[in-house]
Amino acid sequence: MTTPTVAQTDSALAAGGAADHLTVLRNVADLRAQVAAWRGAGQTVALVPTMGALHDGHLALVRRGRELADHVIASVFVNPTQFAPHEDFDRYPRDEAGDAAKLASAGCAALYAPTVRGMYPDGFATAISVGGPSEGLCGSFRPQMFGGVAIVVTKLFLQALPDVAVFGEKDYQQLMVIRRFTRDLDIPVRVEGLPTVREADGLALSSRNAYLSPDERARAPELNRALTVAAAALTAGAELDGVLTAVRGRIAEAGFGAIDYVELRDGETLAPITRVERPARLLVAAWLGKARLIDNVPVQPA
Amino acid sequence: MTTPTVAQTDSALAAGGAADHLTVLRNVADLRAQVAAWRGAGQTVALVPTMGALHDGHLALVRRGRELADHVIASVFVNPTQFAPHEDFDRYPRDEAGDAAKLASAGCAALYAPTVRGMYPDGFATAISVGGPSEGLCGSFRPQMFGGVAIVVTKLFLQALPDVAVFGEKDYQQLMVIRRFTRDLDIPVRVEGLPTVREADGLALSSRNAYLSPDERARAPELNRALTVAAAALTAGAELDGVLTAVRGRIAEAGFGAIDYVELRDGETLAPITRVERPARLLVAAWLGKARLIDNVPVQPA
Repeated sequence: MTTPTVAQTDSALAAGGAADHLTVLRNVADLRAQVAAWRGAGQTVALVPTMGALHDGHLALVRRGRELADHVIASVFVNPTQFAPHEDFDRYPRDEAGDAAKLASAGCAALYAPTVRGMYPDGFATAISVGGPSEGLCGSFRPQMFGGVAIVVTKLFLQALPDVAVFGEKDYQQLMVIRRFTRDLDIPVRVEGLPTVREADGLALSSRNAYLSPDERARAPELNRALTVAAAALTAGAELDGVLTAVRGRIAEAGFGAIDYVELRDGETLAPITRVERPARLLVAAWLGKARLIDNVPVQPA
Repeated sequence: MTTPTVAQTDSALAAGGAADHLTVLRNVADLRAQVAAWRGAGQTVALVPTMGALHDGHLALVRRGRELADHVIASVFVNPTQFAPHEDFDRYPRDEAGDAAKLASAGCAALYAPTVRGMYPDGFATAISVGGPSEGLCGSFRPQMFGGVAIVVTKLFLQALPDVAVFGEKDYQQLMVIRRFTRDLDIPVRVEGLPTVREADGLALSSRNAYLSPDERARAPELNRALTVAAAALTAGAELDGVLTAVRGRIAEAGFGAIDYVELRDGETLAPITRVERPARLLVAAWLGKARLIDNVPVQPA
């Protein structure tokens, strides 16, 4: 295998097979030219939208994209419209060189890294709101987030017009919101979800895990353990209130601070439910030190 | 010339030249199959979105579409989301057979007539809001309208993905709103505006002119006459307040009832202005009997 390389030239519009070097694209015109070159060669394209600070979870999305299409484009854009003023937009981890090397090693063909001004020029005046799956859960604690996600993902979809886009189930509510507006707006892109990638101890991979101290990192896997035990109990017929109370107790005991929510939802519509009669999802958001961690697990009916 | 005919079969995916018969498409799959057939033959597509009740103004849009692309699709959809509950959704004129015959005679290749349920199925949960050009004017008097226009036009654009879409300047604010969100969302469709088509006496063609009694119809052209005189006065350096007062007086004298607005705006951003230093627009909305008529004229700097 050759060593992956990163090509900074925008004119390297390779129409060949899966790349072992990475083309970096910084504006819509270059992105569309690259996609058009591939399309002209009869090839398909997968998009993996990210905010950078890439970890193995993102790279799993890239590998899934390679299974689904001839070429994968990963976008790296820390989207300001999905952060509230008090949130961590400024300190969100950024490492484009590291991201590019990881993407190249995973067989990603192009990195699309637009500027904030390129995405939101002067006079920008459009907003998208999504009801349904965006209600409650993170939608209650980060009310600006899903509108920001909707606008930036819509833009990325319509800039690239990929055949398919791949997102992780780690952000399960986000995935359901994206499915909703993609269908509602008739965006001709297939949305594919991939199960959460975890550390050996169960902690869901997240760029925000970088905020954890060593001691917090050691306690963090309890979030997923609590969910896993609870999901099994629900499938076995346990009563919901008792299960949720147990999850909260176990997380608090592990040293977590504020628990934003622990909730059982329908696995598709995300409507609140109290009994598991079809595939459901148990979702949690809780603070550990300066990090707000989220996780979720499937809950199967008995 | 052969007599235009209307083909009701969805499978008539002709890839030949401009049609003298009209294919009627009732769902997204058939629409996309038709567009794909043309694209596969290397041909381009123009979309003319309408609410039906077609008049010569709409047919001018179709003819312009034929100049701009190989094939024209006209959509006919009376969009419920852009009407408020008290407005005229139920009594808005509908005549699909008449519309189809007119479209065929103008060289339109396909009529896309989706159902309300097809456009807004159960669970639909997405809204688009546009600031900037949607503020004030009709945006103040019909606060639901531009959100409804944005969602339906976005859907039609993304369902058909035409090369170009043609709209009339009669709905000038709507045209500017459509340009805004099309650019903001990176929808890959070119938006083309066409000057208002008028009766010989100056009345702007409108489906809502059907609401006018013969007496009201005789008075209606005064709306355009008042604007035309005012635009000339502004170019000649007349002071804005006096000009607007004169327009209001002249319209009232002609028998119009409530005047929703008479305003001077920048011709591109629609920002309110008081002096004409670059191309501007003078816009009016006023009631004549049961009809709310709108009109606008360009105002050139001296």
